[in-house]
Amino acid sequence: MNVNNVLRAEILVHALPYIKEYYGKTIVIKYGGNAMIDEKLKESVATDIVLMKYVGINPVVVHGGGPEITKIMKKMKKDVKFVKGLRVTDKETMELVKMVLVGKVNKEIVGLINHHGRIAVGVSGDDAELIVARKFVLPDVDLGFVGEVEKINSKILEKLINDGFTPIIASVGVGSDGESYNINADLVAAEIAAALKADKLIFLTDVDGLYKDFTDKSSLISELSLKKCDEFIESGKLDEGMLPKVKSCARALKGGVKKAHILNGTILHSLLLEIFTDEGIGTMIIG
Amino acid sequence: MNVNNVLRAEILVHALPYIKEYYGKTIVIKYGGNAMIDEKLKESVATDIVLMKYVGINPVVVHGGGPEITKIMKKMKKDVKFVKGLRVTDKETMELVKMVLVGKVNKEIVGLINHHGRIAVGVSGDDAELIVARKFVLPDVDLGFVGEVEKINSKILEKLINDGFTPIIASVGVGSDGESYNINADLVAAEIAAALKADKLIFLTDVDGLYKDFTDKSSLISELSLKKCDEFIESGKLDEGMLPKVKSCARALKGGVKKAHILNGTILHSLLLEIFTDEGIGTMIIG
Amino acid sequence: MNVNNVLRAEILVHALPYIKEYYGKTIVIKYGGNAMIDEKLKESVATDIVLMKYVGINPVVVHGGGPEITKIMKKMKKDVKFVKGLRVTDKETMELVKMVLVGKVNKEIVGLINHHGRIAVGVSGDDAELIVARKFVLPDVDLGFVGEVEKINSKILEKLINDGFTPIIASVGVGSDGESYNINADLVAAEIAAALKADKLIFLTDVDGLYKDFTDKSSLISELSLKKCDEFIESGKLDEGMLPKVKSCARALKGGVKKAHILNGTILHSLLLEIFTDEGIGTMIIG
Amino acid sequence: MNVNNVLRAEILVHALPYIKEYYGKTIVIKYGGNAMIDEKLKESVATDIVLMKYVGINPVVVHGGGPEITKIMKKMKKDVKFVKGLRVTDKETMELVKMVLVGKVNKEIVGLINHHGRIAVGVSGDDAELIVARKFVLPDVDLGFVGEVEKINSKILEKLINDGFTPIIASVGVGSDGESYNINADLVAAEIAAALKADKLIFLTDVDGLYKDFTDKSSLISELSLKKCDEFIESGKLDEGMLPKVKSCARALKGGVKKAHILNGTILHSLLLEIFTDEGIGTMIIG
Amino acid sequence: MNVNNVLRAEILVHALPYIKEYYGKTIVIKYGGNAMIDEKLKESVATDIVLMKYVGINPVVVHGGGPEITKIMKKMKKDVKFVKGLRVTDKETMELVKMVLVGKVNKEIVGLINHHGRIAVGVSGDDAELIVARKFVLPDVDLGFVGEVEKINSKILEKLINDGFTPIIASVGVGSDGESYNINADLVAAEIAAALKADKLIFLTDVDGLYKDFTDKSSLISELSLKKCDEFIESGKLDEGMLPKVKSCARALKGGVKKAHILNGTILHSLLLEIFTDEGIGTMIIG
Amino acid sequence: MNVNNVLRAEILVHALPYIKEYYGKTIVIKYGGNAMIDEKLKESVATDIVLMKYVGINPVVVHGGGPEITKIMKKMKKDVKFVKGLRVTDKETMELVKMVLVGKVNKEIVGLINHHGRIAVGVSGDDAELIVARKFVLPDVDLGFVGEVEKINSKILEKLINDGFTPIIASVGVGSDGESYNINADLVAAEIAAALKADKLIFLTDVDGLYKDFTDKSSLISELSLKKCDEFIESGKLDEGMLPKVKSCARALKGGVKKAHILNGTILHSLLLEIFTDEGIGTMIIG
Repeated sequence: MNVNNVLRAEILVHALPYIKEYYGKTIVIKYGGNAMIDEKLKESVATDIVLMKYVGINPVVVHGGGPEITKIMKKMKKDVKFVKGLRVTDKETMELVKMVLVGKVNKEIVGLINHHGRIAVGVSGDDAELIVARKFVLPDVDLGFVGEVEKINSKILEKLINDGFTPIIASVGVGSDGESYNINADLVAAEIAAALKADKLIFLTDVDGLYKDFTDKSSLISELSLKKCDEFIESGKLDEGMLPKVKSCARALKGGVKKAHILNGTILHSLLLEIFTDEGIGTMIIG
Repeated sequence: MNVNNVLRAEILVHALPYIKEYYGKTIVIKYGGNAMIDEKLKESVATDIVLMKYVGINPVVVHGGGPEITKIMKKMKKDVKFVKGLRVTDKETMELVKMVLVGKVNKEIVGLINHHGRIAVGVSGDDAELIVARKFVLPDVDLGFVGEVEKINSKILEKLINDGFTPIIASVGVGSDGESYNINADLVAAEIAAALKADKLIFLTDVDGLYKDFTDKSSLISELSLKKCDEFIESGKLDEGMLPKVKSCARALKGGVKKAHILNGTILHSLLLEIFTDEGIGTMIIG
Repeated sequence: MNVNNVLRAEILVHALPYIKEYYGKTIVIKYGGNAMIDEKLKESVATDIVLMKYVGINPVVVHGGGPEITKIMKKMKKDVKFVKGLRVTDKETMELVKMVLVGKVNKEIVGLINHHGRIAVGVSGDDAELIVARKFVLPDVDLGFVGEVEKINSKILEKLINDGFTPIIASVGVGSDGESYNINADLVAAEIAAALKADKLIFLTDVDGLYKDFTDKSSLISELSLKKCDEFIESGKLDEGMLPKVKSCARALKGGVKKAHILNGTILHSLLLEIFTDEGIGTMIIG
Repeated sequence: MNVNNVLRAEILVHALPYIKEYYGKTIVIKYGGNAMIDEKLKESVATDIVLMKYVGINPVVVHGGGPEITKIMKKMKKDVKFVKGLRVTDKETMELVKMVLVGKVNKEIVGLINHHGRIAVGVSGDDAELIVARKFVLPDVDLGFVGEVEKINSKILEKLINDGFTPIIASVGVGSDGESYNINADLVAAEIAAALKADKLIFLTDVDGLYKDFTDKSSLISELSLKKCDEFIESGKLDEGMLPKVKSCARALKGGVKKAHILNGTILHSLLLEIFTDEGIGTMIIG
Repeated sequence: MNVNNVLRAEILVHALPYIKEYYGKTIVIKYGGNAMIDEKLKESVATDIVLMKYVGINPVVVHGGGPEITKIMKKMKKDVKFVKGLRVTDKETMELVKMVLVGKVNKEIVGLINHHGRIAVGVSGDDAELIVARKFVLPDVDLGFVGEVEKINSKILEKLINDGFTPIIASVGVGSDGESYNINADLVAAEIAAALKADKLIFLTDVDGLYKDFTDKSSLISELSLKKCDEFIESGKLDEGMLPKVKSCARALKGGVKKAHILNGTILHSLLLEIFTDEGIGTMIIG
Repeated sequence: MNVNNVLRAEILVHALPYIKEYYGKTIVIKYGGNAMIDEKLKESVATDIVLMKYVGINPVVVHGGGPEITKIMKKMKKDVKFVKGLRVTDKETMELVKMVLVGKVNKEIVGLINHHGRIAVGVSGDDAELIVARKFVLPDVDLGFVGEVEKINSKILEKLINDGFTPIIASVGVGSDGESYNINADLVAAEIAAALKADKLIFLTDVDGLYKDFTDKSSLISELSLKKCDEFIESGKLDEGMLPKVKSCARALKGGVKKAHILNGTILHSLLLEIFTDEGIGTMIIG
């Protein structure tokens, strides 16, 4: 008898209570960071998502694609300029952003997932006007085609989920002026999760979660109330990368999502570890 | 990071191709032998079945209950008599058999499974006349209320499966005369599998499978064609315990079932090992 | 022309307003007393139930089986002991109770009904955890495995009704400890009726109904308000057999059932007489 | 105890096997003769039809209205002229025929039935072009707007039946020329029954059925094969009133209807007598 | 290239916003006046209705038939008598009214529409007791069988609409006494529209709409609030023909209909002009 | 009265027979040529498609994007090289092709259509593995990632159509090796039409259709049999641009599509002109 196989069976059986808990639930995953770059991590996320779908969970993936965009812009000798962490996006840049996000990054994720189960369907904010955007206005600088979410028309997502598919969403919105807008994918994920009344919103990042004191690795926060989370946002202690994620968590919880998570996506199978273990991983914020 | 958890996640992911393969398929399991006696094995079978249901497979369980019946008959000081491996069953014995199978053994299995997921519903041949029986006639001896399957009215099973339940079937049939008949559970399992056009029929036994030569443990047969299986039956080499199982395999395959398996149910999680590993375990007969 | 047939046709036509009134309604029947012993009465109840189903009513049957249990216990030389009308039930007795109720009494009712129409499916509290029980605790005596209803998981009943079947329920509950509990069938019937929001709950008893003064046969009460019923319960006038039935009526009405009835089940076709005649029979309590 | 009620219950129970036999079946009834004139018979037919619907049968009624038409024509001093049993129908007569059949006779039947159960919906050949007609051409005489069935568009009937209604059909057809045509209701009933693949087609007439020898009342034929029926038609023995009925029976059976019946509609509840008794009444022709 | 065709395409495209606006909405049309007499107008209304159905709108037609009734009554030498604009209707007249409305006028409309698309099904108040009526009582004169609406049983309409049909309704009601009642079709249209929670109720009349001052053709009112409409009714300025229509508009709006319209039905395609142009035609009253 | 509006209404009514004819039918449109470049033509196609959807037709759009790709390649200073009309596509070019087709051209079409009705959803061959491709192998030259259709997984299209959406398909396929392949959009359109058993396949081109003799503008062929079409293909008379279209027509007809059309997409509303006029436009090939 193969000892390995016995262990295998036992581990499957240990997953049962978690499978039962999340059966039929919707989980929105903001995909990003190294988990979108490293080949092994990409494979790991893809299989995690297919597995989730097959055991009865409805995963929905939202992604941006900053590094890829910058890479291609440089190749095309375009200037890359950021103001307050937001990419200044002229018309030509916006066109490029969209081509990269929708025509490259999105379809790569779709392809990776479909390799393990023919379930992924890529959509952008254009499709059935999923993400209606408006220009994001800063007092003293014109960011160009940087937008914020005005409305989510979630019908296309609900139909795709119902039809047995997993939507993979590129964070590009469409304005009522017909223009495309580049929107921070963290915020899109929060709005999508709220519109779908998702059970969970999970951010895959490159750090282990939130720290009380970022310099002290032992101060990782494993659980946080929405109230404490709001205080954290106000405190000014969060850095530029983490702030939109934490704000997005708060936004989603206020919109009816039950739990938001910040995970270290550089850990193999971080999604499964969060969902299929008692202790979970990373930081969980409870609405 | 908990190493154990990482392994756990990887093993879940390795199950994915098998989950996909059996998604929506019906698997009939003839439950019996030590797997129905040993506490740890009972738990193991129960969890395996709930897990199968949650990952999208439709398990259907058929059971007898010989040892339990004999135990209670002895307690009640009734004589136990067998002819050609079949229990001579007078009216009073039949009543006892039914009470034990339907009122004790069946509900114990139901309870064990429901402990892990509220999905099990016990049925006997009486319910919606699932198993219509006729008297099994031997030329020179009257076995009493020993029957064989005349017809399976599978509607109740199809509805229960469709409604999200797992039927647990006690092998008692009802005659057109209104009498109850004790039917070999192996044969019932085969007829149920054929009526449901199941993908697989699995026999949980106390041995590792079929052997070319029973005295030579190295001669275990891992795969067998239906044709070879028929020759085996004709050969006279099979003992009294194995013969009805092998005949039932052949019967099921001829009735449209794709594969029949004889497994060692004394191995923990033998069902998962068969379904979720490439090599499988035991003997597989292909239709 | 056959005069008999003309009468037959006219009587069918006279049933029409009643058929219309109860079309699609759920009626829970507590089956017991002589109607469960006398062969002719058993046939009569079985046909009444099948007829109800075919003319569009949804009957649901709940039964106990006291006399049968006592008979078999005596046969097995077990002591039979009652405290305050409740059977003291040690572990071995409980096992026996369950075998008799589920494996004998229940399946006999199922068989009788199916003889007239293949619609009956037997269930006990174990199936899909229909009846969750807890130990019934008396201050000064341990009754053993005597239980009361903690929760009804009615999904299995709703699905069976919807699928065109008639559930026949044995009054055995399952505890969260996995143990079986013997529960008074009157109380189970009331809880089932409340959980299903039944239109009617009918008790088949061996008397004509409730009497103002039990010694005066002319004082039969044909109709009673819930308020008066509660006063009756408080009055202390009800005997040990009738008290749980009347309490169960009150419980069901408070749980949303519209009408509760106490009928004389020793009258042939008492169910049809209640449902298909203007005057009805027995005592009706209105919520 | 009311003796009458007991009988009532027993008779209901005796109807059960017939209710089971016809559950979900479609029965087309050609309504006519005295059953359409006599008040008591009209009530009797109306209740029979509602009862059939409530016990799960799908009755469909087809009617003409010859006597009523003649009565009104006379009132309006129009000449009434018949050739070979067919009413010569000029344009003005056709208009009158339609007003009487659709606006008077049909709605009276609808009203009578709805009085006992709100299920009847009147339709004529115009509605959703149910009955497409063509002119019936005789070699030497122009009958005007007398038609025959060209096509039945049964969708409207199937939808009404499915929605829980009972269609009452006036035998008026619509030509591809937009004109209305008067069609023999017997033939319409046969075509409707064939289009619906009805289980039974029943003709309500004023006689007991077919006779071997019409002058010998003891020669009533209770059962007839389609082959014998065809021979009968050829024999020339059938009178002008019976011939179209017998021809229509043959037509329906050839179109897939299982049984055709010629009943005496002047017997109260003749429909129930045919359907709910073993011996039935009248003449049955088997396809 | 055919210039005409290009124009044709462009006009189709211009209809798109209107098609979108009314997609899936219910519009009740009171059909009457010259639009029911003139051959060309009749064709125009029929095609408009079929087109509405095919582009996703659910039209429902209600009609009376005064002029046709009077014509036939005269032909039959019956006296025609009106009191306060209401036809005195004795039993014989009522029978005639019904024959004309249901058997002639209704089926003519059905036929005209079906000529362009097999969708029309005629119903009267009798069918499934769509229109339950009671006698309309005036203090000092007995109008006979003139009724008012007591209740609308809209199930038959909802089912027909859902099944893809367009109901054409004759304004005849049925009393709880089984008698037929002649009801003003304007009022029936209002009650039907309210029962169906229609989006629009449209009256086809012979004038352009409501005028502030009827003698001044330039004073046509194009839009009116419900409040103003009520004042108008109170003002006494409305003539006998217009009053019931305006009252019906008010009644419908109070019953939940969104908009009521009074159009000139003598304009070809007046329905399409109202629905498919920005300015609409006639007078619109808003609830 | 606005004369224009009357004409408008009449033209709508004239469209009715065509709306009826194509109700519920699937029409695959290969979008390309000037109709994809000229702003006015783009608007015209977008409105035509939304109108088709709203009047009950199911349009499906397939597009390539050659000129846009070449434009961007030049901008990026990539060499553009064609062999036998096929773009030599190295890995980097393929990435660019995909970004342009999926991230730019596809979403522009989606946006244009959604501006008139929120129905368009963009998909590429990646989504749910809609288009499985294999490398297109020429004997003596390696074209790189130029592919041909191996299989169409049409489930995603069927679900989207059923859910009320209009799929817009970019002609990029995915190989079983996970690589993307550039496939001629004409061939993709043909395979999609065949897989969907479409009623029509329409090619929007820059010419009026097929000519017997291309130099003689009077020799336009308005109708062609599949047989003649095959002869035409063999004849060698077709130029490089038209050949794949004509071959694709033949392929689609052989795959079960009823009619294929080659239209001049530079005519405004060419789609409506083809569908909503008797004479149609361009060349029709009949299967």
